[in-house]
Amino acid sequence: MKLYSSLLTVALLASSAMASSDLIKKATDMGLAPIPNTNLEVLKLINDPKDPITDEKVELGKMLYFDPRLSRSGIISCNTCHNLATGGVDNVPAAIGHKWAANPHHLNSPTVFNSVLNQVQFWDGRSPHLADQAQGPMQAMPEMASAPESIVQKITSIPEYVQRFAKAYPNQKITFTKIADVIGVFERTLITPSKFDDFLNGDENALNKEEKAGLNLFIDKGCASCHTTIALGGTMQPFQVASQYEFMSVGDFKGDKDGMVKAPTLRNVELTYPYFHNGAIWNLADAVKAMGSVQLGIKISDKEASSIVTFLKSLTGRMPEVTYPILPPSTSKTLKPQMD
Amino acid sequence: MKLYSSLLTVALLASSAMASSDLIKKATDMGLAPIPNTNLEVLKLINDPKDPITDEKVELGKMLYFDPRLSRSGIISCNTCHNLATGGVDNVPAAIGHKWAANPHHLNSPTVFNSVLNQVQFWDGRSPHLADQAQGPMQAMPEMASAPESIVQKITSIPEYVQRFAKAYPNQKITFTKIADVIGVFERTLITPSKFDDFLNGDENALNKEEKAGLNLFIDKGCASCHTTIALGGTMQPFQVASQYEFMSVGDFKGDKDGMVKAPTLRNVELTYPYFHNGAIWNLADAVKAMGSVQLGIKISDKEASSIVTFLKSLTGRMPEVTYPILPPSTSKTLKPQMD
Repeated sequence: MKLYSSLLTVALLASSAMASSDLIKKATDMGLAPIPNTNLEVLKLINDPKDPITDEKVELGKMLYFDPRLSRSGIISCNTCHNLATGGVDNVPAAIGHKWAANPHHLNSPTVFNSVLNQVQFWDGRSPHLADQAQGPMQAMPEMASAPESIVQKITSIPEYVQRFAKAYPNQKITFTKIADVIGVFERTLITPSKFDDFLNGDENALNKEEKAGLNLFIDKGCASCHTTIALGGTMQPFQVASQYEFMSVGDFKGDKDGMVKAPTLRNVELTYPYFHNGAIWNLADAVKAMGSVQLGIKISDKEASSIVTFLKSLTGRMPEVTYPILPPSTSKTLKPQMD
Repeated sequence: MKLYSSLLTVALLASSAMASSDLIKKATDMGLAPIPNTNLEVLKLINDPKDPITDEKVELGKMLYFDPRLSRSGIISCNTCHNLATGGVDNVPAAIGHKWAANPHHLNSPTVFNSVLNQVQFWDGRSPHLADQAQGPMQAMPEMASAPESIVQKITSIPEYVQRFAKAYPNQKITFTKIADVIGVFERTLITPSKFDDFLNGDENALNKEEKAGLNLFIDKGCASCHTTIALGGTMQPFQVASQYEFMSVGDFKGDKDGMVKAPTLRNVELTYPYFHNGAIWNLADAVKAMGSVQLGIKISDKEASSIVTFLKSLTGRMPEVTYPILPPSTSKTLKPQMD
């Protein structure tokens, strides 16, 4: 017994002192991947050759992202629910939109940060990329509630926007699609490299001992089977594999037609509370434990959850510095805000 | 007749070619004053020796200004209605607040830019300075709808805010008053020097011929009798002197107990549509003409209004560059948002 106990202690020590290079290999073997640490590699990652990133597009896209005139009321912008000050989310359970309506399915706003790394967009994965995604909330009645033609009317009535579009997309018509496209270009730039990336990129001291232990446990418990790839999420995964969500009564979302759900990115998860598709859980350790039982069919102890949370906090990234835009004024031609 | 006509032409030419130095003297004799053109003079202007501006306070005040957690719902910040992207206002007739309630008196949100230059705050002038003013909207039911103790609870539950307060105000308790104070410090920095200031500061070419003619007319018509001082407004003035507002049916605001109203600053007026206390007028030339009849009892022609508007647009200032803040996350202790 004493010998066994000693052997166990040694084994545990060995595990906690697992060579960093081995842990990096273990993580990458599981499909986890870092945001690269060179600008050129990052650009390759976030760029879309069909609509390449340029300074003109990023600046215009940023202005539109913050422009509340894209909403029917004139007071809700993309940034209202995907607030760059607060992890790219609104930190409320279900998005509040036009006329204070909550999302009808009680869906929680996903973060815009690193959303370019998702393989699909929206909780049901119905959108293949950001430029497509951006068209949704602008039109959705309980969100920005704008008709596409109203948005085009507003933008084309404002000379500075017309000039900026001409520079960003020479000789192209300003359409609703184009407006969403350029917002998508800005959003593609919103990535947040973290200590976790530094570690996977080879800086063995970027994570401390506790964070490394948490990462190891995150993999061993199976979290990384769904929260995988560079996004640690962003792919469609089976929903409620092992048991029902206890809090499923909140909202009516049941996944896509095949019962699949987009596993949210875990990057910046420290900031993107409340958790899950319906924002029903506020505490990150509680969320980890619930995922264990619902998705993995295992019990994750308080201590284990705490260790995993320690790792998850290492995913809080370095936020891009965003200069708050100065928006051009409306003209006499610009459609007026409508509060009804 | 021919002689008279010639003389008139000469007189008009003389007027339009009025020496810039004479126009500067005429403007300053009327009480108009520029934002100074040296940092030291500006600091003297905006500083309050009782709560001096420091970098720590400005940064903390900015964070709080943008923090939606100061509202009951967690989704309305100071910046929602006083948006630094859009002239420091929301560009809607009456402010929309908690639960999509419009301001009960249908009052239009005044701009935060240059509000430090106002002698009083709020349309009825009930507040003597920004730190006092900032306490109002945070609590007002149809605005941010927060109880002061809820705000203090939230801020003191967030370690980074506690640390930042300790640096900004060493050895002082975090109170609701202190929170408003530091927001006021940030707001004091939001001044926007313009071509008009450059002109009054002695750069005779800062305004072009048309802008100078507009300024001259602005003074001659009597506009500068109420829209005076460095703010071109910001002092209490009699309300509806010469006749009734035609659009007075919108809202129920009748001025303070003496029937006085704060003349709004005209700085950035190009950006701060819709106009008047009830936001009933969208077009700036229409607003100028309405002011002529209601306040001055004179008819301002379309041509004159256009000239005055040309001058007013020279008051659109150089906006301060604001880096969008990254806000510290809530903790398990932080009060949750309340949507009801």
